[in-house]
Amino acid sequence: MKIAIDAMGGDDAPHPIIEGVVQAASLVQEDTEILLVGQEALIRKDLKSRFVPRELPISVVHAPEVVSMDESPAVALRKKRGSSIMVAIELVKRGLADAIVSAGNTGAVMAGTLLELGRLKGINRPAIASFFPTEKDTTVVLDVGANADCKPINLYQFGVMGGIYASRILGRKRPKVGLLSIGEESSKGNENTILAHQMLSGSSLNFIGNIEGRDILRGHVDVVVCEGFVGNVILKLTESIDGLLTTQLKQYVMSSLRYRLGAHLLMPALMAFRRDLDYAEYGGAPLLGINSVCIICHGGSSAKAIRKAIDVAQRMVRADVNSGIVEQLQENGSTTHE
Amino acid sequence: MKIAIDAMGGDDAPHPIIEGVVQAASLVQEDTEILLVGQEALIRKDLKSRFVPRELPISVVHAPEVVSMDESPAVALRKKRGSSIMVAIELVKRGLADAIVSAGNTGAVMAGTLLELGRLKGINRPAIASFFPTEKDTTVVLDVGANADCKPINLYQFGVMGGIYASRILGRKRPKVGLLSIGEESSKGNENTILAHQMLSGSSLNFIGNIEGRDILRGHVDVVVCEGFVGNVILKLTESIDGLLTTQLKQYVMSSLRYRLGAHLLMPALMAFRRDLDYAEYGGAPLLGINSVCIICHGGSSAKAIRKAIDVAQRMVRADVNSGIVEQLQENGSTTHE
Repeated sequence: MKIAIDAMGGDDAPHPIIEGVVQAASLVQEDTEILLVGQEALIRKDLKSRFVPRELPISVVHAPEVVSMDESPAVALRKKRGSSIMVAIELVKRGLADAIVSAGNTGAVMAGTLLELGRLKGINRPAIASFFPTEKDTTVVLDVGANADCKPINLYQFGVMGGIYASRILGRKRPKVGLLSIGEESSKGNENTILAHQMLSGSSLNFIGNIEGRDILRGHVDVVVCEGFVGNVILKLTESIDGLLTTQLKQYVMSSLRYRLGAHLLMPALMAFRRDLDYAEYGGAPLLGINSVCIICHGGSSAKAIRKAIDVAQRMVRADVNSGIVEQLQENGSTTHE
Repeated sequence: MKIAIDAMGGDDAPHPIIEGVVQAASLVQEDTEILLVGQEALIRKDLKSRFVPRELPISVVHAPEVVSMDESPAVALRKKRGSSIMVAIELVKRGLADAIVSAGNTGAVMAGTLLELGRLKGINRPAIASFFPTEKDTTVVLDVGANADCKPINLYQFGVMGGIYASRILGRKRPKVGLLSIGEESSKGNENTILAHQMLSGSSLNFIGNIEGRDILRGHVDVVVCEGFVGNVILKLTESIDGLLTTQLKQYVMSSLRYRLGAHLLMPALMAFRRDLDYAEYGGAPLLGINSVCIICHGGSSAKAIRKAIDVAQRMVRADVNSGIVEQLQENGSTTHE
């Protein structure tokens, strides 16, 4: 298996990317190779400075151009065919790689994979799936940003994709799928969720109905289905909880020795809470519905986040998540395109 | 000033409601009277058991019927004219009260006030505004549930209403208004936010542009504008953060003496964080845009939450928030109805 990673994408690329690749390369299974795609001279210099052992399964594929983080995806696609993102996608298209990992310009990665690799049979819109911390086990939330506006059919398909992902990657048996809404009754919500509720109810999914904002962190379901707009808002809100707690505690800790001591003793527990909220713990988020495996990472990804993203990519290829999605859609007889 | 409170609305009504009213009555300004609306015998019996001093400015207005929490608002409006909600609204309509406070069936309160009292001049859709805790000061978020689906004009008007509310109730000078979206650029978001961004930019509001999910708890703005669907989801998500922290800490505290001691020492700080997230601290949420003052409380409101809601109602009447909204809309020349 070959995993192509965009070495030039991310706020501080290529250093944390290469560091993450080196960490991953010593952990991956024997038949796996990691392709570092980007400006070869820069990458080789970085690798050299790390004294990376020759036997690690890392190759370098040259890509002269770089898509910056705030560049228009449309322009990047048209004008930067030699960028690390487009070259990585091209490797998959030509069968030279099985998965792509990128912490670069999310819009360009989405547009590039969609255009060059296409969608899975039966999928109208791909979705980004993210792990969320909960009081019980990790929950998969999708979409968290690929589609600001959705149709009911998209929400239904997100349920199918999330269910297969939770089953094959998290090992959940008959994962519970919930539709994020504002009220538990099937009649509550907005126009989209009310129609999506009907579609999900009629499917073979283990659909438990509407869930509300308060149920996400409680871990009531394995999969939370929502539009990309609301999913992106709650993803970023959840990431920012840590700041609120830290600010609050800091005020106390600064004020007396008692609180300083308390915080010191309790630190590992507080750190565990922060870690729960930290995206780096989860690595990347798969763009599900694309006719390949594509993991999108945070622009500010640490080496650890990259290492975990490579692990997720590897597991997705091995578990053949995509075939599972296509089969489940066929089983439900819903391959209607928009 | 007279404030009509729905004594029968809420999960454990009327007890916490009456307790909250008694607390509030000893704090309100001299010219304020609180009207407890509901089943008179029940209310008088409860008041008697509390040995409430006669001089407290509390009156009882009889309303024989009760709208249950899960009853259809449409049915309640048509068939229960004698319910505590409808009698309270009737008091305002006839000029016998200046504000309504209810922890009862939110749908019935919204529909009843909208139908019987109407909207403010220039407002197409009322919105529920809620306080959110942040790293800095409290932020006003609206809409948090009155309108699942919105149009851009609604979002613009929420900005106007939230701005006046933040200015007159929280005392913010030229409150900063942000539009909740998924990306900072004006071109990012969904169809609604992109159009609303243009309308807000062209207004006299102190509009600072799009904000993202992570900016809410950071306190970057005084007012967050969003559709009721996403507002409701983030309100309930934020309320549930406490559970995640508690679950996490409990695991540690159960495991060793060190953590037990640390938690004990740090408890006041942890409680302050929990308090920040507790809706009872903020009392009720005003339904802005109605041609009166209407405060909607959580069904599970404690006496304290009710007391605070009565305080907010009183302040809204005194500060004449409604005139401020109408004037600002006229100033911006946008009184277009849907």
